[in-house]
Amino acid sequence: MDKINVSEKLSLIADHWNPKIAGELNGQQVKLVKFKGEFVWHKHDDEDEMFYVLSGSFNMEFRDKTVVLNKGEFLIVPRGTEHRPVAPEEVSVMLFEPASTSNTGNVVSELTRTNLERI
Amino acid sequence: MDKINVSEKLSLIADHWNPKIAGELNGQQVKLVKFKGEFVWHKHDDEDEMFYVLSGSFNMEFRDKTVVLNKGEFLIVPRGTEHRPVAPEEVSVMLFEPASTSNTGNVVSELTRTNLERI
Repeated sequence: MDKINVSEKLSLIADHWNPKIAGELNGQQVKLVKFKGEFVWHKHDDEDEMFYVLSGSFNMEFRDKTVVLNKGEFLIVPRGTEHRPVAPEEVSVMLFEPASTSNTGNVVSELTRTNLERI
Repeated sequence: MDKINVSEKLSLIADHWNPKIAGELNGQQVKLVKFKGEFVWHKHDDEDEMFYVLSGSFNMEFRDKTVVLNKGEFLIVPRGTEHRPVAPEEVSVMLFEPASTSNTGNVVSELTRTNLERI
């Protein structure tokens, strides 16, 4: 049972769209990830997903609106809702979601990541 | 589906040891709470509990050690582990835990809070 310093862990992340597992509890995982650029449209049929912005800001696009998320803000995307994160500049994000969650949800693309690294 | 600004929500919290529900996903809740002083020793038999420090610092006491948690750090307390948060100065904390989690776990005390407010 060790504490996690989020900034220290973020300093270890050099790539984008590749979540790392920083903690696990109750079948859920805490992931740290850096976004830059456009992700793919996708949804998670069985998992709600929380995005908490640690630094920077990004746009969470939905089919009918866009939510701008800034540092210190979070958004919970309900299961079944198509979304696409777009980050004009690099942003650091904490994710909270079930351990079963795939980063690209119902889509398999070149951005799909499996066997996520633990940091 | 609205975003949550954590600082704005924290500004609404005036009391200590009284978690407010800021979000809910996958049967888990995101709670915001301010600690000051000594809490009660307790454990959660069926729930792991995550403490993420938003401002300030506090001591998480265990029977065999103390972990000092500073801003930007988190700790996951495994189910069944007795713990007691002690905050010499006020600290703001984000909690992730199952919706079923009682703030005082297996103990009922004057600090037990039920029917938590949503903010």
